[in-house]
Amino acid sequence: MLYYPRPLAALLEQLEKLPGVGPKSAQRLAFHILRASREDGQMLAQAIVNVREQIKPCTRCGNFTDLELCDICTSPRRDSTQLCVVAEPRELMAVENSGEFRGRYHVLNGLLNPIEGIGPEKLSINKLVARITEEEVQEVVLALSATVEGETTANYLVNVLKPRGVKLTQLARGLPFGGDLDYADQMTIAGALRGRREV
Amino acid sequence: MLYYPRPLAALLEQLEKLPGVGPKSAQRLAFHILRASREDGQMLAQAIVNVREQIKPCTRCGNFTDLELCDICTSPRRDSTQLCVVAEPRELMAVENSGEFRGRYHVLNGLLNPIEGIGPEKLSINKLVARITEEEVQEVVLALSATVEGETTANYLVNVLKPRGVKLTQLARGLPFGGDLDYADQMTIAGALRGRREV
Repeated sequence: MLYYPRPLAALLEQLEKLPGVGPKSAQRLAFHILRASREDGQMLAQAIVNVREQIKPCTRCGNFTDLELCDICTSPRRDSTQLCVVAEPRELMAVENSGEFRGRYHVLNGLLNPIEGIGPEKLSINKLVARITEEEVQEVVLALSATVEGETTANYLVNVLKPRGVKLTQLARGLPFGGDLDYADQMTIAGALRGRREV
Repeated sequence: MLYYPRPLAALLEQLEKLPGVGPKSAQRLAFHILRASREDGQMLAQAIVNVREQIKPCTRCGNFTDLELCDICTSPRRDSTQLCVVAEPRELMAVENSGEFRGRYHVLNGLLNPIEGIGPEKLSINKLVARITEEEVQEVVLALSATVEGETTANYLVNVLKPRGVKLTQLARGLPFGGDLDYADQMTIAGALRGRREV
C-alpha cells in the first residue's frame, strides 16, 4: 500500500479508473488539481457532473444534446436532403468536425455484431427508414468504420434502403492523411486502388 | 470552432487545462465520463473538490495532510532521530513509497534559485534548524534533485547545518534502476564511479 494523505488517495483511485490513466499520470493530474485554484477544481468537478446530468440523446437523430432536439436537427441551415449515418455520437462529432458535411445525421447506436448478439432490432434502423420518408431524404451517406462490423452493417442497410429509391454512398477507402505508403496494409492499398481518381 | 453539445464542450475545456491532456485525450476522457455510471462521475467530481478543500500542509513538516499533523509526524513507529529533507510533498511521497526510509521528513517548499529570486528566506529552513534541535535529530538526509538548484540548496544546507554537529547525508548518485550504461550521460557515470562500492 503506497502512502498518500486520504483525500489524495481517494482522488488517485478515481483518476485511475479513467482510460489511459495509470498510477504515474493519475499522480501528475492529482498534483495539478491540488495546486490549481479552488475555482478551477470546482469548475472541473461541476463540468463532470453536468455532462452526466445534462446530456441525453436527441429524440430525432440520437446525437448528444442538452435539449430535446440537437443543434444540428434544429438548424435551418442544414441540407435536409442529405442524411449521414453513423454508429455513435462521437463519430457524428468526428464527421461534423471535418467540416465537409452540411446535411443532417442519424445515429445507429452501434453496429451489427452477430457474435455479440447485436442484431438489426438493437439498432436505430426502423427510425432511420421512417426519417428517410418523412424528411424527404435524397442521399444517405454511410459513415461507418472500415471494419467487419461496419461493413456488415453497411451491407444490411444497403439491402434495406436500396428498394426505397434513395441514393446510397459510403466514405471513400484510401490512404489516411499523412499515411506512408510503405506502412499501409494490403487492404488499405487495395481500397485506395479501387477508389483511384483521375488527376 | 469544433462542434460539441454545450456541457461536453465545457468539460473538454476543463480537461484540456490538465497537464499532458490534449484535445484527443480530453475527448477520450470526456466520452468515458459520459458513459460511466452517475455514481462514478459524482465520486470523481467529489474527490476533486475534496482534495482541494481538505488537503493542507502539516504544521510540523509541510507534508500534505487532511489533519493538523500528518500521519508520519504523529506515528510512534517512526525514527525521530533521522530527518529526510525534500523540496516538495510529492517528492516526500516518492521517498516514502520507496519503502527505504523510516524516519521523519521536512519539506522545504522549493529549492534555492537565485535567478528566479528564490532565496533561503523563501524556504522552510529556519523551521528545519529549529526542528533539528527540538527533536534531537542525529542524521539529516538531503533528498534533493541532482540538478543545479538541488545541488545549490544542498550546499547551502550543509553550510548551515554542519556547525550544529548533525550528521549530513545525501542520496547516492549512480545508474538508475534498469539504466543502460550505453545511454548514461557522463555526469551520471562520473557520479556512479565516485560512489562505487566494494562488492
